[in-house]
Amino acid sequence: MHILVIGAAGMIGRKLVARLAAEGAVGGKRIERLTLVDVVAPEPPPGMAAEAWAADLSAPGEAARMLAGRPDLVFHLAAIVSGEAEADFDKGYRINLDGTRLLFDAIRQLGLAEPYAPRVVFTSSIAVFGAPFPDAIGDEFFTTPLTSYGTQKAIGELLLADYSRRGIFDGIGIRLPTICIRPGAPNKAASGFFSSILREPLAGQPAVLPVGDDVMHWHASPRAAVGFLMHAATLDTAPLGARRNLTMPGLAATVAEQIEALRRVAGDKAVALIKREPDETIGRIVAGWPRKFDAKRAEALGFVAEKSFDDIIRAHVEDELGGKVA
Amino acid sequence: MHILVIGAAGMIGRKLVARLAAEGAVGGKRIERLTLVDVVAPEPPPGMAAEAWAADLSAPGEAARMLAGRPDLVFHLAAIVSGEAEADFDKGYRINLDGTRLLFDAIRQLGLAEPYAPRVVFTSSIAVFGAPFPDAIGDEFFTTPLTSYGTQKAIGELLLADYSRRGIFDGIGIRLPTICIRPGAPNKAASGFFSSILREPLAGQPAVLPVGDDVMHWHASPRAAVGFLMHAATLDTAPLGARRNLTMPGLAATVAEQIEALRRVAGDKAVALIKREPDETIGRIVAGWPRKFDAKRAEALGFVAEKSFDDIIRAHVEDELGGKVA
Repeated sequence: MHILVIGAAGMIGRKLVARLAAEGAVGGKRIERLTLVDVVAPEPPPGMAAEAWAADLSAPGEAARMLAGRPDLVFHLAAIVSGEAEADFDKGYRINLDGTRLLFDAIRQLGLAEPYAPRVVFTSSIAVFGAPFPDAIGDEFFTTPLTSYGTQKAIGELLLADYSRRGIFDGIGIRLPTICIRPGAPNKAASGFFSSILREPLAGQPAVLPVGDDVMHWHASPRAAVGFLMHAATLDTAPLGARRNLTMPGLAATVAEQIEALRRVAGDKAVALIKREPDETIGRIVAGWPRKFDAKRAEALGFVAEKSFDDIIRAHVEDELGGKVA
Repeated sequence: MHILVIGAAGMIGRKLVARLAAEGAVGGKRIERLTLVDVVAPEPPPGMAAEAWAADLSAPGEAARMLAGRPDLVFHLAAIVSGEAEADFDKGYRINLDGTRLLFDAIRQLGLAEPYAPRVVFTSSIAVFGAPFPDAIGDEFFTTPLTSYGTQKAIGELLLADYSRRGIFDGIGIRLPTICIRPGAPNKAASGFFSSILREPLAGQPAVLPVGDDVMHWHASPRAAVGFLMHAATLDTAPLGARRNLTMPGLAATVAEQIEALRRVAGDKAVALIKREPDETIGRIVAGWPRKFDAKRAEALGFVAEKSFDDIIRAHVEDELGGKVA
């Protein structure tokens, strides 16, 4: 089978490509060819026929070029992230909305010429939801995003469902929890501390906690996120009906619970590296975010996330730190 | 004040313009100027400064031309209707999605040059919802449309909320119930019978009922719909927060209840003009439609619909038949 990954150079994209290369097959079908695209040229995995190039999905003709080999499976992970889409109105709408629509329309054009309806896996986000929330957000709660990013993802979901209903492709949208622990250097995202208060101490480095210990949020590891994508790629979509967008399972945990898990995995010494420096701006932003979901549908469909923060931390130690805590 | 009505030649648009002309003011402010646009040139009302022309909202530059006079209030009623948007994929997306976005972006461009943030009243539809439904659909139920029209309206709602949140304009989206009794000739819409089983007998003409008497649906009169628009034009939007789209109140009634109301208003002779000719296709389409809403938010905000089908029928007799039943 031929797989196209758009956004293959991002954190999740790289891990997905590594997993595809390691497994060599999806749903029992051997991967014959990979096409990898991102705004910077992705790294092709060793030992697999792969083309990789840099492209702007929103530029005329680019989507058609990506689809020229008529891939059987398309992962659409590309997006301008929340902070940037909020700061740059035009760029966010151009990439996240126009780019997604251009991709979907390019698939339609191919199918008008000759039958073609690939599986499309689209990464959406819990940012499609906006406060105020019930205690746990159910599968039928409405999408009232409080950011342009969340708006663009919610629109992508609607397009995905309509194009799938019309048989243009066989789409599934998965709303990722906040990914924790994000590997790499600290970034300036308001959500960055959820990862950094674990990642830095695990590496023997200090970290800053800008919110109270009682802040609750919805998490899944990068490993779980890749698992969602792989499962979405092969899932029987018939039971989804016209409701093609799913909130992924995750773990609702308070900062205090994160810290206690860190203590169990890496000891008091690691916990002592967390400095409390309350930041009102970050506190206010985080207060508008979802805390907890009741992701019944996705669970019933076989999507699996971590059940404890200890597991989330251990996944990071195994996947990023070679099994060793500093 | 200066008011722009896009879609001014449609059934609701014409009634809205007549109401604006009759009142001469909105929210206590005198109407100085009307700009009326539609795909066919709308009829300007007598005795009021009005410009009217035919335009395609999705054509380059048209939105900017409509907004050139920097209207204080914009009614955006223009849409390709459900059946046509389903039959013509490109036309539906071009007018309902691109047209709406071009309008919103043209407002943004004006505001970038010089402060400008008009009130925008957008007509959405209960077609943003898709079965299966709870008994009564609440204000926080998710939007999973089963038509491209419903998808395009749901996307318009998301854009309206995001542009309003950013202060680009002061938007409010109102989801209209099925309008009953639609004046004029019978049309081929699957929902047409809800009106025709009343409208034709009231005029002494036979009508066909293609579904069972127990079919329940959600109705409001054209008069109530114009009332929603007028109320939305002056409502204080601060209490809406970021949740700018509202399901309008309406009346949940079965076909049997419609017929009994007809009997009370126009007698057995009128009821005898309804012929039962079950149509499986129409029955199947209607089964996927919303039956009943619990429109608490809109009611609390002062939107008012009819409380009985007798009132809906009487509104038609008064507004369309000069008070006389055949």
